[in-house]
Amino acid sequence: MSSTVTAPSLTDKLVASRAASTALATATTAVKDQALRAVAAALRAGTDTIVAANHEDLVAGEDGGLSSGLLDRLRLDAARIDALAAAVEHVVGLPDPVGDLVRGSRLPNGLQLTQVRVPFGVVGAIYEARPNVTVDIAALALKSGNAVVLRGGSAAQRTNAELVERIRGAVASVGLPADLVQTIDEFGRQGATDLMRARGLVDVLVPRGSASLIQTVVTESQVPVIETGAGVVHVFLDASAPLERSVDIVLNSKVQRPSVCNALETLLVHERAAERLLPVLADRLRAAGVTLRGDDATRTIVPGVLRATEADWATESMDLDLSIRVVPDVDAAMAHIARWSTHHTESIVTDDVDTAERFLAEVDSAVVMANASTRFTDGGEFGFGAEVGISTQKLHARGPMGLPELTSTKWIVRGHGQIRG
Amino acid sequence: MSSTVTAPSLTDKLVASRAASTALATATTAVKDQALRAVAAALRAGTDTIVAANHEDLVAGEDGGLSSGLLDRLRLDAARIDALAAAVEHVVGLPDPVGDLVRGSRLPNGLQLTQVRVPFGVVGAIYEARPNVTVDIAALALKSGNAVVLRGGSAAQRTNAELVERIRGAVASVGLPADLVQTIDEFGRQGATDLMRARGLVDVLVPRGSASLIQTVVTESQVPVIETGAGVVHVFLDASAPLERSVDIVLNSKVQRPSVCNALETLLVHERAAERLLPVLADRLRAAGVTLRGDDATRTIVPGVLRATEADWATESMDLDLSIRVVPDVDAAMAHIARWSTHHTESIVTDDVDTAERFLAEVDSAVVMANASTRFTDGGEFGFGAEVGISTQKLHARGPMGLPELTSTKWIVRGHGQIRG
Repeated sequence: MSSTVTAPSLTDKLVASRAASTALATATTAVKDQALRAVAAALRAGTDTIVAANHEDLVAGEDGGLSSGLLDRLRLDAARIDALAAAVEHVVGLPDPVGDLVRGSRLPNGLQLTQVRVPFGVVGAIYEARPNVTVDIAALALKSGNAVVLRGGSAAQRTNAELVERIRGAVASVGLPADLVQTIDEFGRQGATDLMRARGLVDVLVPRGSASLIQTVVTESQVPVIETGAGVVHVFLDASAPLERSVDIVLNSKVQRPSVCNALETLLVHERAAERLLPVLADRLRAAGVTLRGDDATRTIVPGVLRATEADWATESMDLDLSIRVVPDVDAAMAHIARWSTHHTESIVTDDVDTAERFLAEVDSAVVMANASTRFTDGGEFGFGAEVGISTQKLHARGPMGLPELTSTKWIVRGHGQIRG
Repeated sequence: MSSTVTAPSLTDKLVASRAASTALATATTAVKDQALRAVAAALRAGTDTIVAANHEDLVAGEDGGLSSGLLDRLRLDAARIDALAAAVEHVVGLPDPVGDLVRGSRLPNGLQLTQVRVPFGVVGAIYEARPNVTVDIAALALKSGNAVVLRGGSAAQRTNAELVERIRGAVASVGLPADLVQTIDEFGRQGATDLMRARGLVDVLVPRGSASLIQTVVTESQVPVIETGAGVVHVFLDASAPLERSVDIVLNSKVQRPSVCNALETLLVHERAAERLLPVLADRLRAAGVTLRGDDATRTIVPGVLRATEADWATESMDLDLSIRVVPDVDAAMAHIARWSTHHTESIVTDDVDTAERFLAEVDSAVVMANASTRFTDGGEFGFGAEVGISTQKLHARGPMGLPELTSTKWIVRGHGQIRG
């Protein structure tokens, strides 16, 4: 079990992470893959003790009044642990980004210049009570050559401690430092605060979870952050939008998995298409259990739609709620998006190529689409094999992040005595 | 002159920057180049009024006790203004990064996926009383499609106001919004603080100047920052380092321009090479006016060397000072670098290819070199045509930054009705 009785300080742990990261930075892909296979085996072998630790967290969570949704996200059983192990094995098959050549040239003075991918070093993760994130992030960090410092939700502390012990044992079993994977859950809220201040010891921080958690990290962290997350996602049905395609894309975007960030929140409809499209759409959405809110124009066309407020335009419901607004043209649609979007994903449905290309060029979001479901904004769908998260900031990474987004670069200069004139 | 009498609020200005940035994001390269040529012409045409405003700053600076070095950096005359205009014209000739295709693929379901370069949107710059930075950053921002919000040192406020008015007029003359270039100098220190909190209105902040200015921005900013700067730069002379090459590289790295961040601060020497190299090196360095500090081993070999302290290992002197340490092997050299470097640039001088490649692989700095002067860490030398700064962080950009480092990316997805299964 965990060694919190004689716990080192948080700084001690971060210094140990840094030292461990140095050993991993030059490890071969073969060694890292061996470590990942050992992690998968250790998780499967540890099923009973992991489930037991998880049971303690679940009992405490029930006593503490955790919602059934949160309890379900927290729960691990043999099947879920097997799926976690399989996900780790999947990472074995992904290309190792470390050492990839990004650019290179020979300068006029003969210097050979190459820019290569290198690990960040130490990656911090702050997330909520979802034990799968513990395993996911640890596996992705190991493959990309990074040490990882994990701060999970306190409701999963026993589960995470057990998972991390298994992972550490597996990492050590192939000759890599166990400190490549550490949890700082034992330091509580203060630990999260200190992690956000550990500039120099931690190279990048990735928050995963609710909008409020991400907002806290983004605002308070002195360590560079990759902001992931919140999606107030829009579909715009242009004047020429075909009915069947509109229904397919809106339904899929809204109801296929409403609880995730790439699900649709606000539907914008060109006023010349509203009477043609909205009645059919409303029937289909309601049949799928969606609650509709709309502006006055929408409510005139579709009886029984609730009145939408500004709060609705701004909110990521993550549930079967949809806000609808009728707009005079594509400019008004883009103005609404500029005002209310979290710049995650927006899609236009249109038959008109010029309008499609204007929308794709002018909408300033991580992913802009024409005639496709917003649910495609996903590392797996994009062909990355795995997803670290979806960045909604513009620095470093934007949109779905794969393993290369967990790396930095360095410049290597090879000379034979050149000096500057 | 500036319109500070009826000044809008800082937030008003940032909102105006955001609106202006939208117009620029889709501007053609031709229009941006036309704007840059107009800026260069306006600077030359405005020489008299710029020099007059600068004279007021210089008089105030002298009265305020500004050092002669700072006054020199602040001073503009006709020749310097012409050089600034020429630098703007040089940016015209650089490739426009906006719209460049980074990656692309066709997914199995037929979706066409492309990742293209887009401007950040609004770039903030916080810097000291160097009016050339005002013009430099404005030109680089315009070419890369970004609006820019400038906060220069208060000692250059009149000069900057005049420069910005000229630039705004030139930008407006080609039909682009003047608000693409704004100064917030009139808001004083509070303006800088508010700029650092303007997450959502400003996409990235670039501090340029002293280590303490950069440290303040890095620590306090809620806007993502690209940290540029401080260089405690090392050269390691390996056991096999040839004498002449060692002298060339150490002299060039230290004395060619000691006041810049890529200049050498600490020389590490393999103990098996110390007696062969140090006496000659010390003579040459002293002849060039360099003050030497060293550890005990160095002081035994070279009489008259001052005693180096830990503070010397940690300090970027930016002057003709050099710290010297004798180390038992390459591992000790790399350990010293890991402990004291700011991870800007490190170079090894060696004849041994295995040692060179170990150093290049294991030293974790923005630029690592074998057998070359550290002075080559420079956007111009790397062939970028211009330099935004040298990033010493690992997120987004590392090492010399060119125009592409002033851009983000977005994903464009083109479909024909695809939905997720």
